Amino acid sequence: MGIRAAVAGASGYAGGEILRILAGHPEFEIETVTAGGNAGTELGAHQPHLRSLADRVLAETTPETLAGHDVVFLGLPHGQSGPLAERLGDDVLVVDCGADFRLAGADDWTRFYGTPHAGTWPYGLPELPGQREILRETRRIAVPGCYPTSVTLALFPAFAAGIAEPDVVVVAASGTSGAGRAPKPNLLGSEVMGSVSAYGVGGVHRHTPEMIQNLSAVAGEPVTVSFTPTLAPMSRGILATCTAKARPGVTAASLRAVYTDAYAGEPFVELLPEGQWPATAMTLGANTALVQVAHDEAAGRIVVVAAIDNLTKGTGGGAVQSANIALGLPEQLGLTTIGVSP
Amino acid sequence: MGIRAAVAGASGYAGGEILRILAGHPEFEIETVTAGGNAGTELGAHQPHLRSLADRVLAETTPETLAGHDVVFLGLPHGQSGPLAERLGDDVLVVDCGADFRLAGADDWTRFYGTPHAGTWPYGLPELPGQREILRETRRIAVPGCYPTSVTLALFPAFAAGIAEPDVVVVAASGTSGAGRAPKPNLLGSEVMGSVSAYGVGGVHRHTPEMIQNLSAVAGEPVTVSFTPTLAPMSRGILATCTAKARPGVTAASLRAVYTDAYAGEPFVELLPEGQWPATAMTLGANTALVQVAHDEAAGRIVVVAAIDNLTKGTGGGAVQSANIALGLPEQLGLTTIGVSP
Amino acid sequence: MGIRAAVAGASGYAGGEILRILAGHPEFEIETVTAGGNAGTELGAHQPHLRSLADRVLAETTPETLAGHDVVFLGLPHGQSGPLAERLGDDVLVVDCGADFRLAGADDWTRFYGTPHAGTWPYGLPELPGQREILRETRRIAVPGCYPTSVTLALFPAFAAGIAEPDVVVVAASGTSGAGRAPKPNLLGSEVMGSVSAYGVGGVHRHTPEMIQNLSAVAGEPVTVSFTPTLAPMSRGILATCTAKARPGVTAASLRAVYTDAYAGEPFVELLPEGQWPATAMTLGANTALVQVAHDEAAGRIVVVAAIDNLTKGTGGGAVQSANIALGLPEQLGLTTIGVSP
Amino acid sequence: MGIRAAVAGASGYAGGEILRILAGHPEFEIETVTAGGNAGTELGAHQPHLRSLADRVLAETTPETLAGHDVVFLGLPHGQSGPLAERLGDDVLVVDCGADFRLAGADDWTRFYGTPHAGTWPYGLPELPGQREILRETRRIAVPGCYPTSVTLALFPAFAAGIAEPDVVVVAASGTSGAGRAPKPNLLGSEVMGSVSAYGVGGVHRHTPEMIQNLSAVAGEPVTVSFTPTLAPMSRGILATCTAKARPGVTAASLRAVYTDAYAGEPFVELLPEGQWPATAMTLGANTALVQVAHDEAAGRIVVVAAIDNLTKGTGGGAVQSANIALGLPEQLGLTTIGVSP
Repeated sequence: MGIRAAVAGASGYAGGEILRILAGHPEFEIETVTAGGNAGTELGAHQPHLRSLADRVLAETTPETLAGHDVVFLGLPHGQSGPLAERLGDDVLVVDCGADFRLAGADDWTRFYGTPHAGTWPYGLPELPGQREILRETRRIAVPGCYPTSVTLALFPAFAAGIAEPDVVVVAASGTSGAGRAPKPNLLGSEVMGSVSAYGVGGVHRHTPEMIQNLSAVAGEPVTVSFTPTLAPMSRGILATCTAKARPGVTAASLRAVYTDAYAGEPFVELLPEGQWPATAMTLGANTALVQVAHDEAAGRIVVVAAIDNLTKGTGGGAVQSANIALGLPEQLGLTTIGVSP
Repeated sequence: MGIRAAVAGASGYAGGEILRILAGHPEFEIETVTAGGNAGTELGAHQPHLRSLADRVLAETTPETLAGHDVVFLGLPHGQSGPLAERLGDDVLVVDCGADFRLAGADDWTRFYGTPHAGTWPYGLPELPGQREILRETRRIAVPGCYPTSVTLALFPAFAAGIAEPDVVVVAASGTSGAGRAPKPNLLGSEVMGSVSAYGVGGVHRHTPEMIQNLSAVAGEPVTVSFTPTLAPMSRGILATCTAKARPGVTAASLRAVYTDAYAGEPFVELLPEGQWPATAMTLGANTALVQVAHDEAAGRIVVVAAIDNLTKGTGGGAVQSANIALGLPEQLGLTTIGVSP
Repeated sequence: MGIRAAVAGASGYAGGEILRILAGHPEFEIETVTAGGNAGTELGAHQPHLRSLADRVLAETTPETLAGHDVVFLGLPHGQSGPLAERLGDDVLVVDCGADFRLAGADDWTRFYGTPHAGTWPYGLPELPGQREILRETRRIAVPGCYPTSVTLALFPAFAAGIAEPDVVVVAASGTSGAGRAPKPNLLGSEVMGSVSAYGVGGVHRHTPEMIQNLSAVAGEPVTVSFTPTLAPMSRGILATCTAKARPGVTAASLRAVYTDAYAGEPFVELLPEGQWPATAMTLGANTALVQVAHDEAAGRIVVVAAIDNLTKGTGGGAVQSANIALGLPEQLGLTTIGVSP
Repeated sequence: MGIRAAVAGASGYAGGEILRILAGHPEFEIETVTAGGNAGTELGAHQPHLRSLADRVLAETTPETLAGHDVVFLGLPHGQSGPLAERLGDDVLVVDCGADFRLAGADDWTRFYGTPHAGTWPYGLPELPGQREILRETRRIAVPGCYPTSVTLALFPAFAAGIAEPDVVVVAASGTSGAGRAPKPNLLGSEVMGSVSAYGVGGVHRHTPEMIQNLSAVAGEPVTVSFTPTLAPMSRGILATCTAKARPGVTAASLRAVYTDAYAGEPFVELLPEGQWPATAMTLGANTALVQVAHDEAAGRIVVVAAIDNLTKGTGGGAVQSANIALGLPEQLGLTTIGVSP
């Protein structure tokens, strides 16, 4: 008898990815799948790639349908997890892939989301210093946003080592699945194929305060982040290019040493060999973050590029990785570092 | 101690896919990876998505480097498997993903490939009637071509049931990985993105005789095949649209019954629910063939559409499926029906 | 003072393409642009690629806003052109890019569209025998569907020459813009990228009766058409693969001669040199149909492949070509055979 | 009798784009097309989208075949234009799309290209202050690189107005045609589709010194540029995200005013309306640069995003725009601001 799991929002992209991973996980048993408007239909109509789950019928997402499980994964629009989580037992592990419980500051939440703040849960990025200990003891996990996952993994070693000035520029390209499955004209295939576009420029993207929060905590001082997200013609993947001024004395060798050390023991973050740069395709379907660094002497900057699959390490894989820890399972169980390529 | 495996052509697309599957297979141990021009370099330079194998060094593809394994997978340009296989022991399981041993007729081989015929090996399509028995007893397997896999699975039930006239039209769209990794101007991203193109039209594509061979054998009479392959702007996937005149008495219901019966017990071929049509993305990275049928009454035709991942069920997954059988392992071991989507 | 034109449905894909062509046409003056739900907004919000028209405000699509022009182009959902056209003067040239007036038979209309038949207008495919004479004298033009344009141009010479059996198989790949701009989940970029899918299989696609009508008229006998449309991961383009049994005596040379003759004088249809096969990218933004033929001796079939840009030759360019004829302008005015590639 | 033009490198992407534009230009007559390895073949084999030029035979690229024209456009690998240009008459307008004559400093050239410096020609970016006057008097034009075109247009108004600190970060996404037509494994469709990747990180991309040169000249002080190029899964287009610290007193309004003024009279650069951000698809096939600006108050930065078609405004269109000026023709002749979309 496995760990009984429920997945809410199972007809969306986050929910689908969680199910894809759980279906191959040796310890979880997918007992319940729920949805909002799609409740009552079969999962196969929405997630036709999940053949073994195709005839599962979607229940409605309610506290009642989600009750009685060991783990509940939430893949819901922001604002919906808060009220729902209140109604789930304290002994149930609740893993929220939405934004509701990520931000420490109610002010940030209100400014970027415009609704009352639901609270703050332990942050599901095990690679952050001390975070595994916290995750081991919790029944509530806030899975990081996809952009913050890539940017935090790219930059926190530099701030932990004190080698970067606290003024960061990030430009990231994301696949379209990051925008979710609700149909909007600008997300039509006809619009996105053959096109890269910018959006949310100038500090207004909702993932900005989450990046600032993560990097400032590691740096021990306020870090500013100029974040520009762009939409790229691919379904999955984030490539984040991150740069900050190097502090005095930094060299190419010392920069590399900082990252080699930081990721030496990490199962899911890898500093690529020198000369090889990340491509999102290297991570498709894998729970891996691939990182490479450069020291631009002329510009006095360090540049870090990170690639992840926004749905795997950036959402469903990250969720399962943190759930593994909270449940006392091996952290890597059911997760792979092997991508599907080409 | 697992089954010791070698993969020749490990820096190509077929070899990479075999490795991707073997890396997640509980019984195989990847002992040796070999290449031609890339020998001496690390696998990670060519297959950066296979993180756990990245530092393996490619040996040269020779009978010597391939000796001493329980299984040898060959992912080589056609014409190279023949001489190599002769030098491998009879007790070694050799699984050839090339074309060399697929055709029964030397004439066909010579006409389409222009070189001497190497011979004929048991055909690695377990779904064909009686084929599992043959595969259970062999140490030599010719993995089918990717197009013939999709077309044969789409049409053999109709011919086995005698409901189709032996004059077939097939138009199939393939992702670019089907053309391999050797760089050619027409395979550049700039050329293929935003474009669908036809090639090998009029019966000249090398996979044509293989389709004729398979369908004629099942039909018990000569079947003609008009095959038009097209190149689509995606890396992976084949969508094959296949049609033949319906024999008298065929109805939508009887057609559906034939396919329901044919695939009732098959782990890797699925007739989709009525109203749902295959898309290649449903199969990405999975060993699944998804099939749907229609009876076009006005045109008097049956139409069958099949989708596969050309590298998985069409190459590396099909290879491992047949190898599992030949080695007495469970047929589904290390293979999944769960695709990566969106 | 130019020819005063109005474009209805200007915020959609068909309307946008008509405007793109009219903006570069030396004789038309774009006086009015109209829309449904987008009325009152600026064109630049919907067609940001049409910089010189960006600040035009969309009027509502009504008989009143469309009155007072020399030409009215309609790019509307099917069913809307009929009532609107009744209210436009008989001396106004009305060019309908919708389906309302394409079909001769009310039965066909009702069966495939389910609403009352609006009527039948002269068919805007100038390449059909005798069609230019008809178009010269009309004030009403039904622009062909995009699929029927490609298929009719591919096959009518064979039927006019009597070299093909009247049992046709067509499999066509289309870019996503053919499905229009109304947002639907299956047209999201995340769904269509990396995927080819079939839809409308088995004779149910609405363009089927139009193909049958065209080919039967040329053949002088009923032609059956088995038509399978597929959706390809590109914004624009149709590649239609068409085949029929060759009548006795047909050879590769005689087949080629038929097509060379048929298109010798045509400005916008070209038989490619032997050995070169059409790709949709060759036609992007051009009013060209590119055709190639093969005689498959073993299968006893002729195979014709045609490529067009579904929005140009298949919609807006075809509309302007026919309008040029009806207005007594040079047929090629404002249209190009030069595509944008790569 | 038009202006007699020759295009060298006519089988490549730059050459093809120049030809595409010249074919629609009312004053140029394409007299000669030349190539290297493809000499002796027909243009249609390499540029099948240029139907009206398809049967032109490619001459070899030599001083002799290029002699006797009024204008010679060079679309050659860097290093080849220098020796060739020396042999062309001083009265011939030579427009070089390669890098050979772009850099003022021989040191920069040698460091980034490793060969002797050929010299410095007037720079073909008419939008730069005072540049039109220079181009009017010259017979030699160095067309800017595609990345420097987008970045310079994005940032020079800020430096001309003195509102930005001279420490610039640029991250740009480019379509694959920017890498040219020589087949390389990493440019295969199978590799680039579904993937965004970084390359040339850390100040080593050859377009870096050109950006520094342009921005420093306008700023009147040395500007550092941290430039990271990325490869996106599309054939054409560059989206450049550029940021620098704002100087004291800058506001959103003052920033916008600077750009409104800078581009008020420019035919080919447009500041988009507030709230609309550039997408590369808006510029496909058009000679337009679309720009948008944001003031990120929290980060103290100005962010400018620019989109161009790398082959049009970034190469062939920019070349013709400058040639028009040098020949005393209207600057906009034969060029369009209307893109092909979707």
